[in-house]
Amino acid sequence: MALNFAEYMEQRTALINHDRSLRPDHSRTPTEVEARADKIVRELRAAEAVSVWGAEHEGVPHPFPGMEFLTGRNIIMKTELFKILSKMPKGAILHAHLDATVNAEYVLKLALDYPALHVCTTELLTASNLNNILPQFKPLAQAMFTNPTVALTDTSYAPGTWVPVKTARETFDPALGGPEGFDKWAIGAMTINPSEGESAARRIWEKFTSTFTVSTGIIRFLPLWKRYIYEFFRTSVEDGVSYIEARINFHLIMLITKEWLKAFDQVQQDFKADLKRQGRRDEFIGARIIYTTLRFITLDELDLAWKDCIALKLEFPHLIAGFDLVGPENTLKPLIYYAESLLRFRDRQKEMGLDIPFIFHAGETLGDGTEADDNLYDAILLGTLRIGHGFSLVKHPKLMETCREKNILIEVCPISNEILRLTSSMLMHPLPVLINNGVPVALSPDDPAMFGNMGLTFDFYQVLAASEVTGLIGLGELARDSLKHSTLEVAEKERALAAWEKRWKKFVESIVASNV
Amino acid sequence: MALNFAEYMEQRTALINHDRSLRPDHSRTPTEVEARADKIVRELRAAEAVSVWGAEHEGVPHPFPGMEFLTGRNIIMKTELFKILSKMPKGAILHAHLDATVNAEYVLKLALDYPALHVCTTELLTASNLNNILPQFKPLAQAMFTNPTVALTDTSYAPGTWVPVKTARETFDPALGGPEGFDKWAIGAMTINPSEGESAARRIWEKFTSTFTVSTGIIRFLPLWKRYIYEFFRTSVEDGVSYIEARINFHLIMLITKEWLKAFDQVQQDFKADLKRQGRRDEFIGARIIYTTLRFITLDELDLAWKDCIALKLEFPHLIAGFDLVGPENTLKPLIYYAESLLRFRDRQKEMGLDIPFIFHAGETLGDGTEADDNLYDAILLGTLRIGHGFSLVKHPKLMETCREKNILIEVCPISNEILRLTSSMLMHPLPVLINNGVPVALSPDDPAMFGNMGLTFDFYQVLAASEVTGLIGLGELARDSLKHSTLEVAEKERALAAWEKRWKKFVESIVASNV
Repeated sequence: MALNFAEYMEQRTALINHDRSLRPDHSRTPTEVEARADKIVRELRAAEAVSVWGAEHEGVPHPFPGMEFLTGRNIIMKTELFKILSKMPKGAILHAHLDATVNAEYVLKLALDYPALHVCTTELLTASNLNNILPQFKPLAQAMFTNPTVALTDTSYAPGTWVPVKTARETFDPALGGPEGFDKWAIGAMTINPSEGESAARRIWEKFTSTFTVSTGIIRFLPLWKRYIYEFFRTSVEDGVSYIEARINFHLIMLITKEWLKAFDQVQQDFKADLKRQGRRDEFIGARIIYTTLRFITLDELDLAWKDCIALKLEFPHLIAGFDLVGPENTLKPLIYYAESLLRFRDRQKEMGLDIPFIFHAGETLGDGTEADDNLYDAILLGTLRIGHGFSLVKHPKLMETCREKNILIEVCPISNEILRLTSSMLMHPLPVLINNGVPVALSPDDPAMFGNMGLTFDFYQVLAASEVTGLIGLGELARDSLKHSTLEVAEKERALAAWEKRWKKFVESIVASNV
Repeated sequence: MALNFAEYMEQRTALINHDRSLRPDHSRTPTEVEARADKIVRELRAAEAVSVWGAEHEGVPHPFPGMEFLTGRNIIMKTELFKILSKMPKGAILHAHLDATVNAEYVLKLALDYPALHVCTTELLTASNLNNILPQFKPLAQAMFTNPTVALTDTSYAPGTWVPVKTARETFDPALGGPEGFDKWAIGAMTINPSEGESAARRIWEKFTSTFTVSTGIIRFLPLWKRYIYEFFRTSVEDGVSYIEARINFHLIMLITKEWLKAFDQVQQDFKADLKRQGRRDEFIGARIIYTTLRFITLDELDLAWKDCIALKLEFPHLIAGFDLVGPENTLKPLIYYAESLLRFRDRQKEMGLDIPFIFHAGETLGDGTEADDNLYDAILLGTLRIGHGFSLVKHPKLMETCREKNILIEVCPISNEILRLTSSMLMHPLPVLINNGVPVALSPDDPAMFGNMGLTFDFYQVLAASEVTGLIGLGELARDSLKHSTLEVAEKERALAAWEKRWKKFVESIVASNV
């Protein structure tokens, strides 16, 4: 019964195919053009693994494809692969925190446009404390303007004094870099830099949290907020994103009210009208909001929150896409703590004939059997539509099966996971486990303003660069799935998918055409 | 159909149990004593996560359970959990490279006992090159002794001159630390230190490879080799290990011949006799050799290797446990390159009625669809009895299923994987994925002399510390499985398991007794 080598090779091919049979890019037969484009991209990836990633890069001792994002970002942007992916139609952003979606340079630029926006510090800024003292931003009512001309860096500055942002910038001590020094300081406080990215998990979460505190002071100013939202839509569409479901906190201290939702709606209409004028209507299907509150509130507060969410859903049915509770899972309360209230929310929805799906963060952790890991059980039992992160899902065979069978999509945020130290590089990321097990996945940037992974191109790049299995066709499936698993109504979803397919076809054709 | 909270909790418990139903520690009902010991250990783990891992430790900025081994080693050794585990009966070491199993201090001490052992360097040693110049060790025939008294650190030293190790040590320049400086230098060349452990993957493999080159010069000296083997057996048994299958290279350049096998056999008999005299017969069932060659040889050379392996199996049927090809998978030849020859080997075994199972290294990689990752397909198709490392196995749903159904055990080497940069800490290790999917697992130290994880206690500690699911009973299952998946004959295996069960019972009783 000896096996000859040809028979062995037949068995081998069959086994590999069987092993990959649950992958979304394995079930569809690609068109000839898709197959050619995929091959071109694979060859380019292999070539650049040597020509770009194998070359010397100043300040990057051991570059490799899929490496730490903040350190490798400049190298990524030099690749042809990145340029190709930047043109790819990417479907939906399903997981992004609205407060973290517009780049910090632009946010600061916006702040300078409004005399109402002020800044103060808790200490006089000096060369030695500049990296530790954070700016506090705040819009002041006109009656409160005192128009001080004192610099934050002047010895006469009284800590706590609100100075107009523009003044603070212009008077910033030349010894600390002058206006550009101010920009560097302010932007540094709203973003994570490469050296911080390499620090321990605990410290990176502290820095991450503080970036929100700083930028919130600027963006929670209604006139600026509108331009902020517009910029988010504009840059997303530029990156090939055609639909968005953004999370935003409606917790009382966040000061988010109906006015903010109305603004979101209005900006969306304006943006769509602008696109339509340019003949680009199909490039943007729309944007919705996932109502979120925080995992430190009480059960009573949660009852209030979902009642508020229901009221908003009744008023803005086309805007409220779902409900979530957010915040670092390793340190805040687990979902099980809130389960009673969430069951009541579910019952109330049924009574009212409403559909506000849960779209829970769960399993954003390295824990094995910790409360954060166990959140996956509750998310699924409570009937979550999708799972935010689901990083630890791969440890749970039954839950993996459930996600596959019930079509629960995982919103995977590769770069976020790496920067927040769940994985050291894309090579260690469990994404291939999900894909190979047929669990639906969409890629998301999470907090691009802080991480510098604006749009979806960077996350798509990291995933493509770190695999020899996933190719362009595989990325296409992820994009397609992001739209399929959105909360869009049937007709809208069909329109979104049809528009995407049309653009995808053009995209793969353009790869083949430019390679002839 | 509203669900009340009690019903929800029932569903939740059922789901968690279902999710964990494939775990080995889930199928057996523990005895009352086991359950109590397990609880004690869980409470101790939780307490020490705060009292030890939450405390300040000099030179360790952010300690945490399951952290980088080389940096956290001293903290681990301070814990009560470590002390308890050191007494646990651990079953078999199924994955260790014989050249890397005795600690470097002891190897150097042995070297000093033999006038034949010499050392030389390629450059005069100075304070500035001490960390870069490696010692070369070599036993010389007596006729070649020149007995030079020149120090390696003396300006008159001619690079390449062989100096007796003892002389070299005694004459080591006091400015470089004198004899202790020599020890530090020599031991440093045979081990990996914490700062090297944190360097990039590429560099750590270079250092790792060089440690073998250095120590081989000492241990390939037959009289010393015997004492080396004895020490390996002795320390393993002290650590609670009762059976060993060690890999050793029989490639020509390694100079391993029948004499070395005979020595291995003789030392084993001596060691068993010594234990028997002490009334400790059941603490050591024995040791076997997995014949290995290297993944850079040609197909013709592989044909020669397995013919050699067959000849040895015929002469030492009780010693030859299996066959493997070793070396870094990411850079050397894949198994598929050797498949034709390996199929011939398999056929020949059938003709001769022999059983030399393949026990292949496979998937020791972060690659997704790379040749190293694909080695898993070939290992399984070629009928491997176990898999060495199998780090990337979790990506392959069909192969996971096959391993579970065909009972193919994975020899997981947690600390090795972390030091060689497959994972950044135990928290990122895919081990829970294997266990939760019912894939049989045994823990192994791989190369403890280089990594400092002598025995099995350190690897067991890292696994226990990094999980809230795995407890003492879970570790017991891993130990039991290591014996079950050994190549021992039926009767021997039954004896080994019975002896282990007896010790395990005493062990859990002692935990409960000492905690009253």
